[in-house]
Amino acid sequence: MRIDLNADLGESFGAWSMGQDAQLMPLISSANVACGFHAGDPGTMRKTVRLARAHGVAVGAHPGFPDLGGFGRREMKLTPQEIEDLVLYQIGALAAIARSEGVRLQHVKAHGALYNMACRDEAMAEAIAKAVLAFDPTLVLFGLPGSALLQAGLDAGLPVAAETFADRAYHADGSLAPRSEPGSVIHEVDMVVARAVRMVCEETVVASDGTSMRVEADTLCLHGDTPGAAVLAAAVRRGLEDAGVMVASLTRR
Amino acid sequence: MRIDLNADLGESFGAWSMGQDAQLMPLISSANVACGFHAGDPGTMRKTVRLARAHGVAVGAHPGFPDLGGFGRREMKLTPQEIEDLVLYQIGALAAIARSEGVRLQHVKAHGALYNMACRDEAMAEAIAKAVLAFDPTLVLFGLPGSALLQAGLDAGLPVAAETFADRAYHADGSLAPRSEPGSVIHEVDMVVARAVRMVCEETVVASDGTSMRVEADTLCLHGDTPGAAVLAAAVRRGLEDAGVMVASLTRR
Amino acid sequence: MRIDLNADLGESFGAWSMGQDAQLMPLISSANVACGFHAGDPGTMRKTVRLARAHGVAVGAHPGFPDLGGFGRREMKLTPQEIEDLVLYQIGALAAIARSEGVRLQHVKAHGALYNMACRDEAMAEAIAKAVLAFDPTLVLFGLPGSALLQAGLDAGLPVAAETFADRAYHADGSLAPRSEPGSVIHEVDMVVARAVRMVCEETVVASDGTSMRVEADTLCLHGDTPGAAVLAAAVRRGLEDAGVMVASLTRR
Amino acid sequence: MRIDLNADLGESFGAWSMGQDAQLMPLISSANVACGFHAGDPGTMRKTVRLARAHGVAVGAHPGFPDLGGFGRREMKLTPQEIEDLVLYQIGALAAIARSEGVRLQHVKAHGALYNMACRDEAMAEAIAKAVLAFDPTLVLFGLPGSALLQAGLDAGLPVAAETFADRAYHADGSLAPRSEPGSVIHEVDMVVARAVRMVCEETVVASDGTSMRVEADTLCLHGDTPGAAVLAAAVRRGLEDAGVMVASLTRR
Repeated sequence: MRIDLNADLGESFGAWSMGQDAQLMPLISSANVACGFHAGDPGTMRKTVRLARAHGVAVGAHPGFPDLGGFGRREMKLTPQEIEDLVLYQIGALAAIARSEGVRLQHVKAHGALYNMACRDEAMAEAIAKAVLAFDPTLVLFGLPGSALLQAGLDAGLPVAAETFADRAYHADGSLAPRSEPGSVIHEVDMVVARAVRMVCEETVVASDGTSMRVEADTLCLHGDTPGAAVLAAAVRRGLEDAGVMVASLTRR
Repeated sequence: MRIDLNADLGESFGAWSMGQDAQLMPLISSANVACGFHAGDPGTMRKTVRLARAHGVAVGAHPGFPDLGGFGRREMKLTPQEIEDLVLYQIGALAAIARSEGVRLQHVKAHGALYNMACRDEAMAEAIAKAVLAFDPTLVLFGLPGSALLQAGLDAGLPVAAETFADRAYHADGSLAPRSEPGSVIHEVDMVVARAVRMVCEETVVASDGTSMRVEADTLCLHGDTPGAAVLAAAVRRGLEDAGVMVASLTRR
Repeated sequence: MRIDLNADLGESFGAWSMGQDAQLMPLISSANVACGFHAGDPGTMRKTVRLARAHGVAVGAHPGFPDLGGFGRREMKLTPQEIEDLVLYQIGALAAIARSEGVRLQHVKAHGALYNMACRDEAMAEAIAKAVLAFDPTLVLFGLPGSALLQAGLDAGLPVAAETFADRAYHADGSLAPRSEPGSVIHEVDMVVARAVRMVCEETVVASDGTSMRVEADTLCLHGDTPGAAVLAAAVRRGLEDAGVMVASLTRR
Repeated sequence: MRIDLNADLGESFGAWSMGQDAQLMPLISSANVACGFHAGDPGTMRKTVRLARAHGVAVGAHPGFPDLGGFGRREMKLTPQEIEDLVLYQIGALAAIARSEGVRLQHVKAHGALYNMACRDEAMAEAIAKAVLAFDPTLVLFGLPGSALLQAGLDAGLPVAAETFADRAYHADGSLAPRSEPGSVIHEVDMVVARAVRMVCEETVVASDGTSMRVEADTLCLHGDTPGAAVLAAAVRRGLEDAGVMVASLTRR
């Protein structure tokens, strides 16, 4: 058994720091690097790519809405063409910086509101898939299992990776419980580890109504922006390895 | 005899239009496309690349300072590392959009204050050359003949193109007369055409003190942001062709 | 009979020009001045305030979403607190520049998607009214007649102005026909003039289904961003004056 | 004896935190609040004004260059008119938010590169003083003692405050030693406290060449962006109070 562990990194901007990149990088296999629209800047992108390379971590683009002030978490109503263009722009910008560091991109994961909207909205999902395909048809597109985003990737002939969250509650229909719902974010380290192991080894998760349901898991997201993020991430990785799971990026499968 | 004719295009931004791209594109052989930092946006970049492709015009990146409000014309004191990173970012962004349109970049021309400062400042010039080299060592770097920018390109082993301006006055030392100087911008169509022909056919120009001096000319810049820009550009092209000069992009040499 | 004629002005940004401010200013009584978030910049704001002052035109703030790239026309999901703060910020910025020109603000008109969303959404409408009230309770708040925005202004005790559009089709329920609907924008000068006169003199408009309906009209919006904008605006003003209507800003009532 | 203690606060932006505002606010008498151009955003501005009010701390505007990516620390070549307009814009924006919290501005302190350049450059200094005067002639303008900025304030008839830095080395000519110079920033708490007390009580400072020189001190700047900032600030305040100095904002003099 093997799993990819991914985290959103490189989310500093100019003089502002964010996240615990140095602590998380040794624990993950895939880094989603912000591309300057919701976070990140050319210098931060370079530093993040270098750090990933030093730890043998695969690099992916993490494009977001053009909304620095809202960190790409606020929904924006853009046309599919606008989305296709801004995703392509951001992938290209990161790929250029990565190339100058001798690194080739592995994947693309949309950020924040762009990710969430594209998981539900077919036209947005297709726009993202179209941009990825146009840039490099070997890039892996990340998305929630069963989402419009993942489906658009499959329809476009792209390799895709179903992404799960060990620290988030799921509804019985397979959707993520929204953050506004009590209990939607799980903080107990042991429970998160147990869920991670079960997701990867049994491909199941216990939904918020107590029923067990199947969940695809090609890559597991570790959050990096909470105070105990690195501690939690380390526990998840150790838990998975103790259960005999090999942590490896997707290109190494 | 042959010459490349270049112009700065794709300088619209969002709802704001600028320039006479549709009129200029049929007259030039190389388009310098703004990359979103001083002007341009992902959608404008795509439209401009398409228009260039439709007219068989070669596409180059036109990276600028991160200063939309100042159109990249205000000097900013950045470190060489910041400059290298933002040039690379912008080239990559345009290259991705161009790739999705089946177009490969031909060249890089820095914009506005970035161009002017890099023509004088070796560290800035090296930073730009380093970015271009890292992305693609076959890209042609534009710069004023005799400038630090052109020299940095040569030192990096990049193909370079010496750029001249038929509608600008030159000092006897080969430098451009600053725009603040009376007579620095030449508006008379016949005079601009005559200067263009002389620059290309004889590689000389009459300086502001009346002396004739040598000037290298691989590519000649046509301005697109003035009222009579398209008329002037058409006259220059016709004048060159009447003098037996072939207008062709650099890659076709 | 009297009416206020308003137009969105000062929508240039940096090197980019927009609108026909010089042609429109002599025709209107109230100018809605962009405040730097969707359009406008400090220098443009000053020039626009000066031009308004020279023509005896009242000045209002025209705050928008923080979305230069989308000209404030793309819906963004912000919290009411975020909206209150950004409206206050923009009003204050313009008021300071106006004060330095000896001008006091008359009104506030939200721009683009912010206006449209606040006309439907009570929480957004209240946030805008709260910001206006906090800054200056004598400022007139603009909104569609019958909208949540106008109601929020009334509830806050603000003076309000019902705004109508002579060049836009109305549905029988009083709502504006969306721009995507065929026939929603009326281009024939004579018809626009006739509608304007009827709106002001009879307070009625013929809806898209042919029925006549009542419409409140304190201020009539003249668009400035279309090619024939100034011609249309001049015709509307002349038509109103020929019908015995006096054009005057709201503070002069 | 009395002194004003000021610090740059409200420098968070969107999702990014910066500084130790909660720790510093109880220690200072004047807060310089970022206005959204180099740092800060409408929501952060409101929170910072509220925090200042809760601690009885006077609020001032801290306008900077339009350069979020460089935190306003990179020199930009703007015209005096551009500087006047952007300073006015930022003061107005903060004043509006402060007014909604029942707070009136006390002072204006330019930020980063804008401050440093205006201390040396008369035209920039005059532009800033002109903006402050136009907005409110009772606002106190901060500047280095002996600088062009302070002189421009005096010439404009504004109240001014000479600002000193207890943790920075001074040259014998009264200028601050640039940060690039070894020993230019003093980290030893005892030495900083001793210098602060001497600056306030004796109006002298020991320059880097060992000579003692006079230094005006109306307000003393405490830095908030270093790891030990709050500890150092607390020590300076205690040291001053132990020496019998009263810490009070300028308006309370």
